[in-house]
Amino acid sequence: SPRYSNEIYKTANMPGVTVGLAWTYVGGDILFIETVLSEGKGELLLTGNLGNVMKESATTAYTYLQANAKKLNIDPTMFGKKNPHIHVPEGAVPKDGPSAGVTMLTSLASAFTGRRVKPYLAMTGEITLRGQVLPVGGIKEKVLAAKRAGLKEILMCAQNEKDVREIDGDFIKGLQFHYVKTMQQVLEIALV
Amino acid sequence: SPRYSNEIYKTANMPGVTVGLAWTYVGGDILFIETVLSEGKGELLLTGNLGNVMKESATTAYTYLQANAKKLNIDPTMFGKKNPHIHVPEGAVPKDGPSAGVTMLTSLASAFTGRRVKPYLAMTGEITLRGQVLPVGGIKEKVLAAKRAGLKEILMCAQNEKDVREIDGDFIKGLQFHYVKTMQQVLEIALV
Amino acid sequence: SPRYSNEIYKTANMPGVTVGLAWTYVGGDILFIETVLSEGKGELLLTGNLGNVMKESATTAYTYLQANAKKLNIDPTMFGKKNPHIHVPEGAVPKDGPSAGVTMLTSLASAFTGRRVKPYLAMTGEITLRGQVLPVGGIKEKVLAAKRAGLKEILMCAQNEKDVREIDGDFIKGLQFHYVKTMQQVLEIALV
Amino acid sequence: SPRYSNEIYKTANMPGVTVGLAWTYVGGDILFIETVLSEGKGELLLTGNLGNVMKESATTAYTYLQANAKKLNIDPTMFGKKNPHIHVPEGAVPKDGPSAGVTMLTSLASAFTGRRVKPYLAMTGEITLRGQVLPVGGIKEKVLAAKRAGLKEILMCAQNEKDVREIDGDFIKGLQFHYVKTMQQVLEIALV
Amino acid sequence: SPRYSNEIYKTANMPGVTVGLAWTYVGGDILFIETVLSEGKGELLLTGNLGNVMKESATTAYTYLQANAKKLNIDPTMFGKKNPHIHVPEGAVPKDGPSAGVTMLTSLASAFTGRRVKPYLAMTGEITLRGQVLPVGGIKEKVLAAKRAGLKEILMCAQNEKDVREIDGDFIKGLQFHYVKTMQQVLEIALV
Amino acid sequence: SPRYSNEIYKTANMPGVTVGLAWTYVGGDILFIETVLSEGKGELLLTGNLGNVMKESATTAYTYLQANAKKLNIDPTMFGKKNPHIHVPEGAVPKDGPSAGVTMLTSLASAFTGRRVKPYLAMTGEITLRGQVLPVGGIKEKVLAAKRAGLKEILMCAQNEKDVREIDGDFIKGLQFHYVKTMQQVLEIALV
Ligand SMILES: [Ca+2]
Ligand SMILES: [Ca+2]
Ligand SMILES: [Ca+2]
Ligand SMILES: [Ca+2]
Ligand SMILES: [Ca+2]
Ligand SMILES: [Ca+2]
Ligand SMILES: [Ca+2]
Ligand SMILES: [Ca+2]
Ligand SMILES: [Ca+2]
Ligand SMILES: [Ca+2]
Ligand SMILES: [Ca+2]
Ligand SMILES: [Ca+2]
Repeated sequence: SPRYSNEIYKTANMPGVTVGLAWTYVGGDILFIETVLSEGKGELLLTGNLGNVMKESATTAYTYLQANAKKLNIDPTMFGKKNPHIHVPEGAVPKDGPSAGVTMLTSLASAFTGRRVKPYLAMTGEITLRGQVLPVGGIKEKVLAAKRAGLKEILMCAQNEKDVREIDGDFIKGLQFHYVKTMQQVLEIALV
Repeated sequence: SPRYSNEIYKTANMPGVTVGLAWTYVGGDILFIETVLSEGKGELLLTGNLGNVMKESATTAYTYLQANAKKLNIDPTMFGKKNPHIHVPEGAVPKDGPSAGVTMLTSLASAFTGRRVKPYLAMTGEITLRGQVLPVGGIKEKVLAAKRAGLKEILMCAQNEKDVREIDGDFIKGLQFHYVKTMQQVLEIALV
Repeated sequence: SPRYSNEIYKTANMPGVTVGLAWTYVGGDILFIETVLSEGKGELLLTGNLGNVMKESATTAYTYLQANAKKLNIDPTMFGKKNPHIHVPEGAVPKDGPSAGVTMLTSLASAFTGRRVKPYLAMTGEITLRGQVLPVGGIKEKVLAAKRAGLKEILMCAQNEKDVREIDGDFIKGLQFHYVKTMQQVLEIALV
Repeated sequence: SPRYSNEIYKTANMPGVTVGLAWTYVGGDILFIETVLSEGKGELLLTGNLGNVMKESATTAYTYLQANAKKLNIDPTMFGKKNPHIHVPEGAVPKDGPSAGVTMLTSLASAFTGRRVKPYLAMTGEITLRGQVLPVGGIKEKVLAAKRAGLKEILMCAQNEKDVREIDGDFIKGLQFHYVKTMQQVLEIALV
Repeated sequence: SPRYSNEIYKTANMPGVTVGLAWTYVGGDILFIETVLSEGKGELLLTGNLGNVMKESATTAYTYLQANAKKLNIDPTMFGKKNPHIHVPEGAVPKDGPSAGVTMLTSLASAFTGRRVKPYLAMTGEITLRGQVLPVGGIKEKVLAAKRAGLKEILMCAQNEKDVREIDGDFIKGLQFHYVKTMQQVLEIALV
Repeated sequence: SPRYSNEIYKTANMPGVTVGLAWTYVGGDILFIETVLSEGKGELLLTGNLGNVMKESATTAYTYLQANAKKLNIDPTMFGKKNPHIHVPEGAVPKDGPSAGVTMLTSLASAFTGRRVKPYLAMTGEITLRGQVLPVGGIKEKVLAAKRAGLKEILMCAQNEKDVREIDGDFIKGLQFHYVKTMQQVLEIALV
């Protein structure tokens, strides 16, 4: 039975929680990225056994969010009053790489806007400071992991569409794909 | 004679002290997690020869506590006036891993609410920022260690129930198990 | 089809984004350097898997910009009110060396002046604190990478002109070269 | 002639100085732990070539002292006005482990209360944040070192009594032992 | 043609720029040390791929400058209002050792007094906090590098005079040497 | 001719400069320890390629000085207004160990009191926070180095007297020795 069951969905169904896709040496996997805001002065807190590159993705996502607060209807004074804490569960597993960028930004945007993330949606992709989404590796493994976990929609960079086309059609029947170029498109699809 | 004797119970019977279960290379073991609040500005202090993953568990527990202060009847202004210090005795032994998450959160919640932890209760489980309890490894070794130490109730993630069922029934006679999915359930059981 | 396509041009066409040239073990490559200003106290934030020497280039560029604010028509009080964040995408790739100096300074100057960088222009060169441009290695590989990516103009140190002369003329047909000695010349050419 | 001679006793006879027992690869040894308070904001300063575990013992002792200030008749506002500096002489020797916990707490308590430590008393034992004393290793070697140095009383955890019983009675003739379970008992015995 | 050409001289001819001599595994070399002051609170910023010993030289030079501000006609309130940034170009090359001390102090003194450094002058020597100049190694290689670069005067410690005497007279024809014992002598010769 | 010549004496003859004795793998050596006070908030600055143990000696000396300010006629408000910078010349040589303790404290005391250190005096010895002087190694090598350098008096711990007695009398003819037990005795002898 798929891991992303109805039950897990219920606990996931709160602002700040987003499903990402990871590529590990044993294949693809899903991962949850959780953001909670606590009182503070805008300091970003990161936990979950993250490597430096993954931490930098979070920092980049946070600066992007601050620079685009108005477009996203976020009150900019929040950045001086809240500490966002991003946590990636399963602390026993070291995690690294830039591909959680879209997931981190979506999780932060969800927490700061209070809007929930679309259920049964997974995503993967590097982000840039100006809001582009860049392609990442391991697409086949990630897509199969999403399928196994019972997810229904997958969002990634348009430049990764070619990698999806190389997967046997039987394996991805029933999955819906979103190909994007910018973070603006990501947030339009992901936030409900 | 079991280690968690009546005498140890007496010294343990103060807010902020919780019994966890660890899995080491020589088998399972119990560990005490102690939280004391001192004057400060909300800085979390961690001692006891803890590895980075275990420190991150404590940080995650602390953010969760702050974000759920109202539900737990904690005055949120305490977080700006107290430094919680979490200590795990037996400093000669390096300790790491995410499985003390529930124990750390219970210890913090006990210290901040002033409510004692149920005596003769041990626990093990990873936590997430949104308050889920995740399964951990080494259940058989941990349960046997709890039994040897004279503990009477054990709390863990519902997804670990299958690991308890694999233990020979004779070994765990007299032990009561609590299977939980959320930190809210943990605190309802653990705080008296 | 060249990577630096019209489409990429559109997203690149915002202040703070500059195209640099890198020399990696698989040959030359282009890289984008992005600067975004957020609220702060003048602290420089650096992400993108950068090594220490590359970080020092950014620090040097930032001091140069502050010391030459008036010449560049930048309100000097901005340095106490903004945090510049420089990000270099493709976080999976470690990046180091001094040759992105001109690119970093151009990116910072563009962000602080609000003036866009000339489209289809790439650059490479070390900078000094007094505003000189120094020669760098890998010119042949960098020029070919710029050509492949569809870029049209390349800026570098005058002392690197000899390295361009050694490239077969067929390979660089259609490319325009700018040879400079000072950062002042760089900014006159690069900012539109 | 024993090292802890009358002469050394005279220089040791000031508040903040306590004698501990260490277990090194050449056998047991005595060590002095010195605390001096200087003007400051409550920051703990540690010197003497101490390892991380020993530093954590000092941090734990300091939090315990703050949390139990009233019981010990310490004015709690001192913690915001003084920096305690703990120094362990013989800087050429690296020192580590949790067994100096009781010694560190006694030294701090002596410095903050202004009460001297009982002369000719040595001690060894780990402490916990809630004030328990835990057993430590190397008891035989430590006891013999205390004897050689001319010390007359030794304080340790009750759970270490069995280790003293294993020492040949001739070796420890004339030594008085104190077996304790809590830091409160330690301070009642040690502070004069 | 010598590297330190008229053209480079022109860009070097601003306060804060000094020519030093380095001894590398491929022989001697000249290096420029540049100091620029930006707004700040007196924090010293160091870039250019410098090792710890070279960074300490800069710190020592900075304290010396502050302690001798009056003698050098520097307004002491500048130290609370400016951040000196010392940069040593050619970031690809790691640099270390104490021999750039005189060069760093001259560069700082030039930046803080606004007085230019004498053109065509190179220098090498360790400094002490009380203003002595100490001898350094690699004199022969450094002198030849200065000659190759077109420099005309070389300043060093009096105790290094014997090392110059061992160089074949033909190689150093036309070079003028300054042998000094104190930083005061250095600055009298170097600042115009 | 001895290194500690009349000429060097003249530059050494300022408050804050003290002569220590070091024991290196090539034998004994003299070293100068220099302290200069600059404007600040009491932060101790350490340079000269010092190891951690030697840095801790300086920290210990600084706390001792603060705690004994009155006895030494130092205005205690100076500690909030000055940054002492201790520098040990010859940055190319790594230095470590506790034996420079007395030299560091003497240098600091000289700088804070404005009293000069007795000329032609060298010293070696570890210090403790309560002001004891402890014995150190390498006495024979250190004494011979002091003699070669033209020094005339040597101060060390009384427990090192036995090491001096083992040196052939011819080698130390003309040298005067001071054997001390406390820092108070050191300062009475050393400060003029
Ligand atoms: Ca997983
Ligand atoms: Ca992802
Ligand atoms: Ca245990
Ligand atoms: Ca546990
Ligand atoms: Ca690339
Ligand atoms: Ca570049
Ligand atoms: Ca000893
Ligand atoms: Ca001890
Ligand atoms: Ca060079
Ligand atoms: Ca030099
Ligand atoms: Ca020497
Ligand atoms: Ca010494």
